[in-house]
Amino acid sequence: MRPVCVIGLGLIGGSVLRAAAASGREVLGGTLSTEDAEAAAADGFTVESTVDDALRAAAERDAIVVIAVPLPAVDEVLRRVAVLAPDCLLTDVVSVKTPVRHAVSRLAPATVYIGGHPMAGTSSSGWAASSATLFQSAAWVVTVDDGTPVDAWRTVAELALDLGAHVVPTTASEHDDAVARVSHLPHLLAAVLAAVGADGGPLALALAAGSFGDGTRVAGSSPELVRAMCEGNQAPLREALDEALGRLGAARGSLASTGSLGKTVHSGHDGRRALDGHRAAAPVPIRLDLAAPEALAGLRALGAQGGRIVRLDGDDALGEVPPEPAD
Amino acid sequence: MRPVCVIGLGLIGGSVLRAAAASGREVLGGTLSTEDAEAAAADGFTVESTVDDALRAAAERDAIVVIAVPLPAVDEVLRRVAVLAPDCLLTDVVSVKTPVRHAVSRLAPATVYIGGHPMAGTSSSGWAASSATLFQSAAWVVTVDDGTPVDAWRTVAELALDLGAHVVPTTASEHDDAVARVSHLPHLLAAVLAAVGADGGPLALALAAGSFGDGTRVAGSSPELVRAMCEGNQAPLREALDEALGRLGAARGSLASTGSLGKTVHSGHDGRRALDGHRAAAPVPIRLDLAAPEALAGLRALGAQGGRIVRLDGDDALGEVPPEPAD
Repeated sequence: MRPVCVIGLGLIGGSVLRAAAASGREVLGGTLSTEDAEAAAADGFTVESTVDDALRAAAERDAIVVIAVPLPAVDEVLRRVAVLAPDCLLTDVVSVKTPVRHAVSRLAPATVYIGGHPMAGTSSSGWAASSATLFQSAAWVVTVDDGTPVDAWRTVAELALDLGAHVVPTTASEHDDAVARVSHLPHLLAAVLAAVGADGGPLALALAAGSFGDGTRVAGSSPELVRAMCEGNQAPLREALDEALGRLGAARGSLASTGSLGKTVHSGHDGRRALDGHRAAAPVPIRLDLAAPEALAGLRALGAQGGRIVRLDGDDALGEVPPEPAD
Repeated sequence: MRPVCVIGLGLIGGSVLRAAAASGREVLGGTLSTEDAEAAAADGFTVESTVDDALRAAAERDAIVVIAVPLPAVDEVLRRVAVLAPDCLLTDVVSVKTPVRHAVSRLAPATVYIGGHPMAGTSSSGWAASSATLFQSAAWVVTVDDGTPVDAWRTVAELALDLGAHVVPTTASEHDDAVARVSHLPHLLAAVLAAVGADGGPLALALAAGSFGDGTRVAGSSPELVRAMCEGNQAPLREALDEALGRLGAARGSLASTGSLGKTVHSGHDGRRALDGHRAAAPVPIRLDLAAPEALAGLRALGAQGGRIVRLDGDDALGEVPPEPAD
């Protein structure tokens, strides 16, 4: 198993380091955060004193380099990768994929890069919140774009599987559209709801129960991380926001004219049932041959169907797809 | 302790019946739902065969009558109360208070009515989902409007306390404004989010994690109950919706122009911190004299500050208020 070098040791990077170590891999880390570095070292992990030292050590060991810093800090790390570890296989856990893909082409064009994104988190941040089990049963996107080398894809997918996740193959751009809807829009709606609720004053807060508590939970996340995530996915998020604004405006109009919220409430209920149905469905096993010429297209089709890879065995990728397209 | 007659044996009414029985009160119930009636009887509770029979039995026993049907069914129950149990003390657990108050004035004007609303629920409905512990540590609004008789208020507040809740005193109209923000708006935003997410197709559902799961949980509730609740609070909900639309539109504009979501994300984070602060604050004990001429005003002020009554002892109402107004 290839060693793993994680750059950035916050909630996600720290959890990658812990989970990779727990899976038996050699791990090392580097971070600009003195607080995270000291906390990781105190927990017994090898943390190089600078990001440059970590990348040099990664190059010596032919480690997989995992970029786990917020999007605004990615460019600077890529510039150092291009100088110190250009031959290492590069992946990341950043929450948007197209901007990182473009940054790699621009700043580290000689490096083989496979985009990654584990769909896991908590509203806490930093090494102190990290856990070796954060990725258990989580979806981990490993991108499949035109020209993606299958061997490198398999190596990154194997890492995600080793860390307890299942792998969802999709393109950078399809990933960004999907997470705008199911991750970034939820953060914006939670922020708006929390602000409107708090504007109701102490009485409103005293009456807040489950629906408000659940609906605002992620508004407790670090504002800097939420901004980096949402602002980095501007065009897809604008599209999701426009759809939400359209639906909410229609609800407002209907409430004021006929008094009915039937369409809004029923389409929401249908949407939630689609999610529950997707989660409850007994998946159909599927086997893909990664040595086949159409392997990339097969992986992309699997992801588009809502499927996932659960095991790799030589050239065999063992997957699962929902029994029928979710309605 | 006065017997309790509950009309409507769904999630909330069923839980009132169970919790009142568990507190040692004589209880009886009536419902138009054959399914709920049979399930409650099978669990050993006294369920009269018609709502009329239940109200007649309530009148014989001088029971507190608790209306626990959805808002659209309230008028019909009130017409029967006016005929069969006009001298019983009347309360309710309906999610809006001004429309019920007006309906009582119109349809059962001779009956003493104190509005109630326990802030508790689940996304399941019906007797099968009811529980004797649903109201433990929940806020239970008991309305204090001009002319509310203090004795009747105390009797209803005592019932709520017996059922495990604490009592939040406020006016019908302040209640309706607050729940539009912290209960009805969350349901609409959850519905919109669930619909936009599901529109992303199977890939989006496969990538949905905590933020989408939490943000859409209440979209799984019975659409009929959500509609009855939200449509019944039209004017306050329109105001909360307009504030949400304004904030979301501002986020959209800022994202498209400067690319920043700073204001949206920070005000949401502040709102969520206000909720967490309200919940974590060590409350200051306060004692109100219900025999004092200004008792109603004192109760209303307590509610407006985010305070609550936790015990009644003769004319002493023992309360708690937050140490300072939530910011």
